Amino acid sequence: MAGQDLVMFDLIAKKRDGGEFDAAEIDFWLRGMLAGAIPDYQTTALLMAIYFRGLTERETFLLTDAIVRSGDRLDLSELPGCKVDKHSTGGVGDKTTLVAMPLAAALGLTVVKMSGRSLGKTGGTADKLEAVPGFRLNIPPEQLRRQAEQDRLVLISQSSNLTPADKRLYALRDLTATVDSLPLIAASVMSKKIAAGADVIVLDVKFGRGAFMPDAESARRLAELMVKLGRQAGRKIAALLTSMEAPLGRAVGNALEVWEAAETLRGNAAPDLLLLSLALAAEQAYLAGLAENRRDGFAMARRALENGAGYQKFLRFLQAQGGDTAALEQGGFLRAKTVLDVAAPRGGYLRAVDAAKVATLVQRLGAGRLKLEDEIDYQVGVWLEKQCGEKLAAGETLARIYAESPAQAAEAAEALLAACQIGEKPPAAAPLIYGAVTTAGFIPWAELQKDYQ
Amino acid sequence: MAGQDLVMFDLIAKKRDGGEFDAAEIDFWLRGMLAGAIPDYQTTALLMAIYFRGLTERETFLLTDAIVRSGDRLDLSELPGCKVDKHSTGGVGDKTTLVAMPLAAALGLTVVKMSGRSLGKTGGTADKLEAVPGFRLNIPPEQLRRQAEQDRLVLISQSSNLTPADKRLYALRDLTATVDSLPLIAASVMSKKIAAGADVIVLDVKFGRGAFMPDAESARRLAELMVKLGRQAGRKIAALLTSMEAPLGRAVGNALEVWEAAETLRGNAAPDLLLLSLALAAEQAYLAGLAENRRDGFAMARRALENGAGYQKFLRFLQAQGGDTAALEQGGFLRAKTVLDVAAPRGGYLRAVDAAKVATLVQRLGAGRLKLEDEIDYQVGVWLEKQCGEKLAAGETLARIYAESPAQAAEAAEALLAACQIGEKPPAAAPLIYGAVTTAGFIPWAELQKDYQ
Repeated sequence: MAGQDLVMFDLIAKKRDGGEFDAAEIDFWLRGMLAGAIPDYQTTALLMAIYFRGLTERETFLLTDAIVRSGDRLDLSELPGCKVDKHSTGGVGDKTTLVAMPLAAALGLTVVKMSGRSLGKTGGTADKLEAVPGFRLNIPPEQLRRQAEQDRLVLISQSSNLTPADKRLYALRDLTATVDSLPLIAASVMSKKIAAGADVIVLDVKFGRGAFMPDAESARRLAELMVKLGRQAGRKIAALLTSMEAPLGRAVGNALEVWEAAETLRGNAAPDLLLLSLALAAEQAYLAGLAENRRDGFAMARRALENGAGYQKFLRFLQAQGGDTAALEQGGFLRAKTVLDVAAPRGGYLRAVDAAKVATLVQRLGAGRLKLEDEIDYQVGVWLEKQCGEKLAAGETLARIYAESPAQAAEAAEALLAACQIGEKPPAAAPLIYGAVTTAGFIPWAELQKDYQ
Repeated sequence: MAGQDLVMFDLIAKKRDGGEFDAAEIDFWLRGMLAGAIPDYQTTALLMAIYFRGLTERETFLLTDAIVRSGDRLDLSELPGCKVDKHSTGGVGDKTTLVAMPLAAALGLTVVKMSGRSLGKTGGTADKLEAVPGFRLNIPPEQLRRQAEQDRLVLISQSSNLTPADKRLYALRDLTATVDSLPLIAASVMSKKIAAGADVIVLDVKFGRGAFMPDAESARRLAELMVKLGRQAGRKIAALLTSMEAPLGRAVGNALEVWEAAETLRGNAAPDLLLLSLALAAEQAYLAGLAENRRDGFAMARRALENGAGYQKFLRFLQAQGGDTAALEQGGFLRAKTVLDVAAPRGGYLRAVDAAKVATLVQRLGAGRLKLEDEIDYQVGVWLEKQCGEKLAAGETLARIYAESPAQAAEAAEALLAACQIGEKPPAAAPLIYGAVTTAGFIPWAELQKDYQ
C-alpha cells in the first residue's frame, strides 16, 4: 500500500461492503484519528460498519497491534522472574485479583499490574485498594523496580499514554452503541494487556446476569479470540470462563471486598471465591512454567494460601505502597455509619441472588462511579451472610447492608430482598467455572475439576 | 413520548437492533443535530445503522416530514393556477427541465422551481442557465410573484434555510459512505420537493451506467417510496423510470445543453429527449387535472411544442430573469475556443455511448464542479452528432468536442472514442422509459407508450 493515497471514505465504504483491511489501512485510520486528521464522525460510522460486518481474525490482530503501537508500552524485561498479569472482564463482587495476585507472588512469580480508574457500578481494583488508608497507586519507577524485586507484587496506575487509540475508540464506542462487538472488545482488552508487558496473561471471562457477555457460548468466542491475539503477540495466555449470575463471594463494595480478600487469605473463605482465586493462580503458575501441570499449580496455590504466605504478601504489598494495614489485620476496617441486618422473610433455599440487581443497589449506596470525576464511598456495600444455594430459616440474617444513613440502608435492604429468590427446593447446580480456553483448545469443567483438588 | 427523556445513545442502539422510531424520536434527533446538542459522531453512527437496518415506510415519512419542518417552506398558495414541479435523480445530458417546464407553462400550469448549486460532473439546471449572459437566479419576492402570474415560469435559487436538516445529513452521509440508502435518498429528495411547495410533483428516476440507481428494479423501489411520501404529504405525484445508459439527447455541457433545449423547442429535436420531455409535461398536465388523461396531456404538450408556444415561454422566462437571448435565438451562443470534430474510426452501428465515461470527460473539460467553490466553464462539452443505435460510415463525424484548448480537445476526443462502441449489428432496442410509478400502481412501457402518440 506504500505510496497509495488512503482516504477514510474508502475505508468506511470497504468495511460497509464487507471488505478486509490490511495493516496500512488500519494504521492510517488510527493515526489519522489520533492526529485529528480523521474526524470522529468518520470513525464512528466505521465503528458501526464494523459492528455489522465484524473484523476478521487477521484484522483484529492488526487493530490490536496498531493500538499497542499508538502509545507507550511498559518494559518489564529487566525485572526478575516471570511477569504475570490477570484480567477479568468484570463481575459483581469480583475481588479475585486481591487474592490470586498475592498467591502468585508468594509462589515466586512477578506481578506488575496496572489498574485504571474504572467506570462501573461497584468500583475497580484500584478503587477497592484505596479503601486501605494511605494506599497509593502512583509510585516512582525506582520503587516499582525495588518492590517487584523484593515483594514480587506491584499495582500501578495506568500510564496516561498507554494505548491512547483505545481510549479514544472506547470513548466513541461508548457514545454510539458500538461497544458490543466481539472483535472490538477483544482488541481493546488485549491491546492494554499486551502494552502492559507481562509474559503470562490469565483472563477471567465472565458471563451471565452480572456480566457483559450474556452466555457461556459468547464468552467462549470472546475468550478464544483474545487467547489467539495474546498468542500471536508472543504471550503465554489462557482464559477461564466463569458464571456471573450471583455475586462472587460474600462482599460487594470496596472496603468490604478488601476485607473479604483478607479473610480469604486468612483461611476464612467463601467456597466460590476460593476456588476461582486458586484456579487463576494455578493457571499463572502453570503457564509460567513454575508448575508442571495445572494440578500442581493448584496445589501450590492452595499451599501458599494455607501456610499464610499469600496473606503476608498481601500485607507487605499494601504497606509498600503506603497502606496502613492495622485495621485490616486487627479489625475496625469496616466503618460505615449504618449497618442494617436484612432478615430472610421466609425459610427455604436461597435459589438466586441477582448480581445485576445487587450491583445496582450497591451503586446507589455510592460505591461506584458513572463519571470519572464521581467520588466513591469506600465503606458502603453489602455482605451476603448466605450465598446462593444455601439453606436458611425465616428471620435468619440473609445479608448485612453497610450504608451512610438508615434511610439509604432501608432502601438498599428492600432492593436486596427483591434481588433474592427463596424457594423450597435448592437451585439447579451449575458449575462456577464453565471451562478453560487455552492455546491447545477448550477444556470443559468436567475435565478441569479433576485438577482442582 | 412526551415527558420522557430521550437520549441519542438509546436511539442508535434501537436502530442498531432493528427497532422502529416514532415521531418524537426522529424530531429529537434532527433538532438535537441542528442545535449542536447531538454531536455529528452520533449522527453518523446512526446513519450507518440505518444503512444496514433500513427505515420502515412510516419512519421514512416521519423523517421526511421532520426535515421539511426543520427550515423554511415556500408558500405558493397565493399564486395563480396549479403549481407544478419536476425532479430528476440526475443523468448525463439531462436537459428535460429546460424543455418540459416551458411546455408546462405554455399549457397554463404555474412552474416555480428551485435550483441549488449542484455538485456533479456536468452541472445542474441553475449552472446550465447561467450560460445565458445576464441570467440570474436571485430575484426579489415581488418579481417571483409577477413572473409567476405573467409568465408562469420562475426559477429561483434554493433558500439558504430550506431543509437545513437535509443539508447537514447529506454532508455527513457524503463523508461516511452512507449516501446509498433507499429511505435516506427518498427522504432527502422528497423533503426538498415538499418544502418547495408545488401541488404536483413529477419525478424522473434514472437508472443505468450514468445514473445513481444501477437498474430498473432499484429505481422502481426508490420511485415507489418517493411517490408514497409525496402522496402522504398531500401532493399529486408520479414518477417515470428512465434508462440512463447513454447521454440523453446530443449535448453534454452547460451552454451546449441550453442550446439543445432551444433547438428542441424550435422543433429540431433528438427523439429520446423529445419523448421524455413531452412525457414529463404530459404527466404534469394530467396530474394537475388540465388533461383528462395521459394521452390528452401528451397531445397538448406536443401541440405547445409544435406551435412554438413552449419556445416563446422559454425565451420570455430567460429574459424576465435578466438573460440576453439574442445569441440563443440568432446563433453565436456557443463560443468555446476550440471545436474538434471526432470522426468514426470505422463504419457500423453505434452500439453504446457510455454515459458515465462521457460525464467524466466533460467534467475534465471543466463543465462540472466537485467542490461548491469550483468555477464552471460554461462553454465546454460534447455534441453527439450520432446517437446510440444510429448507423454511421467510417470517417463520418461521430461527435464534436468543445474545449478551451486543442490539447484538452484531443484528450477528450480520445476519451469519447473509448466511451463509444461501434459494431456491425444494431444494439438491442431497450425503451428509454421503463415505466411509470403512479399512486394507482406501476404502468409498464408497453402500456404507457400507447398514450404517447
